[in-house]
Amino acid sequence: MNYTEQLGINAKNAEPEIASASTMLKNKALSAISKALTENADLIIAENAKDLQKARENGMSVAMQDRLKLDEKRIKDMAKGVDEIIAFNDPVGHIIEGFTRPNSLRIAKTRVPLGVIGIIFESRPNVTVDASALCLKSGNAVILKGGKEAINSNKCLGEIMRKAVESVGLPADIIQVVDSTSRETTNELMRLNKYLDVLIPRGSARLIQAVVNTATVPVIETGTGNCHVYVDDSADLEMAVDIVDNGKTQRPSVCNAIESLLVHKDCAEEFLPMIAERFKAHDVKIYGCDRTIEILGETVEKATEEEYAKEFQDYIIAVKVVESVDEAITHIRKFGTKHSECIVTKSLENAEKFQKKVDASAVYVNASTRFTDGGEFGYGAEIGISTQKLHARGPMGLNELTTIKYLINGNGQIR
Amino acid sequence: MNYTEQLGINAKNAEPEIASASTMLKNKALSAISKALTENADLIIAENAKDLQKARENGMSVAMQDRLKLDEKRIKDMAKGVDEIIAFNDPVGHIIEGFTRPNSLRIAKTRVPLGVIGIIFESRPNVTVDASALCLKSGNAVILKGGKEAINSNKCLGEIMRKAVESVGLPADIIQVVDSTSRETTNELMRLNKYLDVLIPRGSARLIQAVVNTATVPVIETGTGNCHVYVDDSADLEMAVDIVDNGKTQRPSVCNAIESLLVHKDCAEEFLPMIAERFKAHDVKIYGCDRTIEILGETVEKATEEEYAKEFQDYIIAVKVVESVDEAITHIRKFGTKHSECIVTKSLENAEKFQKKVDASAVYVNASTRFTDGGEFGYGAEIGISTQKLHARGPMGLNELTTIKYLINGNGQIR
Repeated sequence: MNYTEQLGINAKNAEPEIASASTMLKNKALSAISKALTENADLIIAENAKDLQKARENGMSVAMQDRLKLDEKRIKDMAKGVDEIIAFNDPVGHIIEGFTRPNSLRIAKTRVPLGVIGIIFESRPNVTVDASALCLKSGNAVILKGGKEAINSNKCLGEIMRKAVESVGLPADIIQVVDSTSRETTNELMRLNKYLDVLIPRGSARLIQAVVNTATVPVIETGTGNCHVYVDDSADLEMAVDIVDNGKTQRPSVCNAIESLLVHKDCAEEFLPMIAERFKAHDVKIYGCDRTIEILGETVEKATEEEYAKEFQDYIIAVKVVESVDEAITHIRKFGTKHSECIVTKSLENAEKFQKKVDASAVYVNASTRFTDGGEFGYGAEIGISTQKLHARGPMGLNELTTIKYLINGNGQIR
Repeated sequence: MNYTEQLGINAKNAEPEIASASTMLKNKALSAISKALTENADLIIAENAKDLQKARENGMSVAMQDRLKLDEKRIKDMAKGVDEIIAFNDPVGHIIEGFTRPNSLRIAKTRVPLGVIGIIFESRPNVTVDASALCLKSGNAVILKGGKEAINSNKCLGEIMRKAVESVGLPADIIQVVDSTSRETTNELMRLNKYLDVLIPRGSARLIQAVVNTATVPVIETGTGNCHVYVDDSADLEMAVDIVDNGKTQRPSVCNAIESLLVHKDCAEEFLPMIAERFKAHDVKIYGCDRTIEILGETVEKATEEEYAKEFQDYIIAVKVVESVDEAITHIRKFGTKHSECIVTKSLENAEKFQKKVDASAVYVNASTRFTDGGEFGYGAEIGISTQKLHARGPMGLNELTTIKYLINGNGQIR
């Protein structure tokens, strides 16, 4: 038996205990985790320092080093995140619907945990804690495979959480951090159908594509967002400037940030200079179509299909002037990743058409795409934004970490 | 561009029209399909005869020939099945929940079609019609790949339906029957991520396993059912005989039929002869553990792990005498396929334990597993019984052929 299979067996053995644990016990475990993180801050920072040391040696960019770094403040934030999950409703045992059939058979459609969840992620070590806490609260065992650049931090966080859950009487194996940086282990994890019920990749488009191509375990894709704002000819242009600027510059590295701007030809001449002016504050680089270059001048580089397809996650945007709302919809249909799309308009007809015809998890009229977020929707912490159509779409919270079990009670009914 | 990709493009082009079609128009299309099937019965029977001719030449079993055969009565039943779907509620556009956030952002969580659905199935040509009708009503385009033994029947049914939907003004390409029997086409279909939103295999465990191993398109597994009845020591034994007999013999070829019987040691001596006596009416072959052979005698063949793992789909059953409800649960955990499981008991404690600890889509107390069925649940026609945990579990009706779209309306909100 290899190492990956052993992880699977450990998780499956621990699963029944966490699946049937009471909400009170699970909350006690979360509380113990939160406390242990705070108490072990020095240890975490020391282990994290090893990763940072290696990162510097390997010439990692300063921005990436910053994502990797854990300090007192960030550890406190992680602990606070865990505490917040204590207050969430436990989805397990919820009766979604229930009814009695004509033959007196009583049927209850209930929520149960998914079972064992695999999470494959990159760089940021806080995912180890966030994801574990959400899986624990929803009654699932979890196997976490983080990036090799954070291996010491992740292992340390894992050990602290395992001791914490054990201290309240739950099996440590409900949380396992993969102690391997080999690609082989990742590949084995993706095909561990016997023990894994679902696999959630979190990270770059490249990572997610690799998982989709290799995995036989059911996958929930998260997070690639090539999001657009379309500024209609009837738009309130001041509002459009705010929405486009917010979508692009408020936090460009996240998946609900916008990457492309589509502008109706009849307002392009007025609008493009307005947004270009606003973009100066963040020195946003613009790629554009010929008409955009005509209006904004030679500082704009010519956009090709490559730029329209790209998730920059940076202060960069691709701009296109379009003939109509229909051309905008067609463009989004071609280049969008079905995450979040927005129209700025005063036209009821165009608003309705855009919301009906654009195929995405969230379609906005006159508001920033940055709101596609579990917290902003009022659902609380999330494990990711699903961009696929099966099981979950949009922000995935605790409900999305459960499945259905029909409980059927009779007194001898047969067909 | 190859043939499979062309099918994908056709479907994606037709998708927006069916996705935004009104319920009235979709019902009109269903009505036209139903009428066309009845009117073209002679043509269908003639094409089906070609398949039957070939089947006889290839030495197909009589039972399989019967599954393949279409006659007046079966065509009328197919048409009636389509008519019934007209009466179902259209899930598209349903608002699952809606709320206004503190910043006045209005969020509506709505149901939209999945998009393009691929269905890979075996032998029975009625699936071509059932599945098309369900996909149409739920606003999806469908690509159907049936078994090679039914190719003439499937193509004929496909053509009739395509003409019918065209006659009401919908694009024919919302229904496409794959005109190829090659394995290569099937493999291409399974990796057609660019055009297919979901793949639903219907058929044998072998087919479903092949799809799970090969597909990169998200899959919904359906239908493998290694279902058990556990007869507790406290059971009403007459009731247990009825439930076991019904589960095994009422329709042994379907996925919710039972394949194994577990009996508590304290009632085995009384119960096993009772059920063996009842099984005589259908000449049910019994494989059993040593204790079963002790009680029932040498007519029982020794059961190995192979029999406990097997979905016989026939008048064959594997029997095991167990020490306790816990041993029964452990056995089901090892051999079950998470479809439908049943306990017959008078003990509240054991009933609750069984429903809590057994991991399956439907867990019964004192009723036949044969009720795991869209119609029996009151949900209407189904596209299959999902045995996986993602997206859908148990009978899959129209709701399960949809996904989520969040519609968000604001007046300039930014973060």
